[in-house]
Amino acid sequence: MTADATSPATADRPSADVVTAGMVVIGDEILSGRTKDRNIGYVADRLTEIGVDLKEVRIVPDEEDMIVEAVRALSARWTHVFTSGGIGPTHDDITADAVAKAFGVGIDHHPRAVEILKARLAGRAEINEARLRMARIPLGADLIETENGMPGFRIGNVHVMAGVPVVLEAMMTEVCRTLKGGRPMMSKTIDAERGEGLVATPLAAIQKAHPATVIGSYPYERDGRYATNIVVRARDSAALDAAVAAVEAMLAEVRARYP
Amino acid sequence: MTADATSPATADRPSADVVTAGMVVIGDEILSGRTKDRNIGYVADRLTEIGVDLKEVRIVPDEEDMIVEAVRALSARWTHVFTSGGIGPTHDDITADAVAKAFGVGIDHHPRAVEILKARLAGRAEINEARLRMARIPLGADLIETENGMPGFRIGNVHVMAGVPVVLEAMMTEVCRTLKGGRPMMSKTIDAERGEGLVATPLAAIQKAHPATVIGSYPYERDGRYATNIVVRARDSAALDAAVAAVEAMLAEVRARYP
Repeated sequence: MTADATSPATADRPSADVVTAGMVVIGDEILSGRTKDRNIGYVADRLTEIGVDLKEVRIVPDEEDMIVEAVRALSARWTHVFTSGGIGPTHDDITADAVAKAFGVGIDHHPRAVEILKARLAGRAEINEARLRMARIPLGADLIETENGMPGFRIGNVHVMAGVPVVLEAMMTEVCRTLKGGRPMMSKTIDAERGEGLVATPLAAIQKAHPATVIGSYPYERDGRYATNIVVRARDSAALDAAVAAVEAMLAEVRARYP
Repeated sequence: MTADATSPATADRPSADVVTAGMVVIGDEILSGRTKDRNIGYVADRLTEIGVDLKEVRIVPDEEDMIVEAVRALSARWTHVFTSGGIGPTHDDITADAVAKAFGVGIDHHPRAVEILKARLAGRAEINEARLRMARIPLGADLIETENGMPGFRIGNVHVMAGVPVVLEAMMTEVCRTLKGGRPMMSKTIDAERGEGLVATPLAAIQKAHPATVIGSYPYERDGRYATNIVVRARDSAALDAAVAAVEAMLAEVRARYP
């Protein structure tokens, strides 16, 4: 991993059809069940929109070693990494320090972050040591500024964001404005109206015959009856259409045979 | 990692205060955002109830190498591992094969699983190759049977469950009946009614003075105002009570000073 943190995210990545991402969710409260995560689904949706494939998510506790390990592993493996959680002012907010350690750089109060903090507090509250903690940013990182609240930051290919969903969403919107995406994955969902057991064998044959697509089968239960949604995904629209036509022809046959 | 899959889950683990777990969530649909995961929060809640600390979750795609890697890593690291997803009859359901590979064992139709499949289908549908796929279980694994549906299975310390929430919940209930838990973590939540910036410094001092507890601070926003919930957790009730008393005394002071 390199700490080439000064070049913009859009410039230091080769243009390619396939752009990947990993996500690290940081927080004891997710692992204890106290808080139900909503950020993974949000980040997944936004990345899919801009053609980035989210390939791996790790949820880790507020423990420095585990954060460092996860950030290093995913940063080395995927084009972009996104983290959520652990950037507030309290003693259990250790993400900035852990990310600095992962990149082998120091950490200090960032002048622009201190300025943002002062502007936010002006006339409302005094600067104190705890609040200043939120302005500690790894050396060489760029800030992710939003309309409200303290900034997140980017170092190398790692984007560090807040855990509170409304704040994360603002930061993710800001990041997505400049992020280099890939060729978007298109998808079509077809309700089989039959259970997986009836479609699985012909579906496997269709997947084999259409290697430029990814075909998934997602069973659901409604009124005590199991059926499945078939999702065909592809970056090429002709490949998508051909596989969808094959699935529809197969389903017409299955439905006729099992009315 | 050993494949000592025949001994019951309760017998092969030493009794200890701290019992840990990891979870592997398997499925492209979670990573694309198409499906919003509900299983992590459920498993986290159930484990917390029985005193098991969930320490790490990994979400991986329907790709054998990534499933094998995650299962091996978490199985070696934590007392128990739970997986969700990828045990249906379609071509993208590869969890059973990946888990067999992770443990270095073969896989075949399990006589009892075939029996369950036949009983389920009796008079409704015929056995076919795809449906039989759901009865393929790694050699040496024990079944996780539920009232309805096909079973999950346990091999070594890895519990393999379905991805459909209603089915996962039934399997998790079955697993928890026999799982060796630890000394439950108790917790108390105190609404600070003030922002993190006002409580962070004294809270860090309280955490330091009460090392047998874990104190977390979880900011929330309500009607445009930020405040925070302070959560104190401990396995020992005297330690919990002492830390909670310290937090309440500190909050009384902060609230008096910043009405």
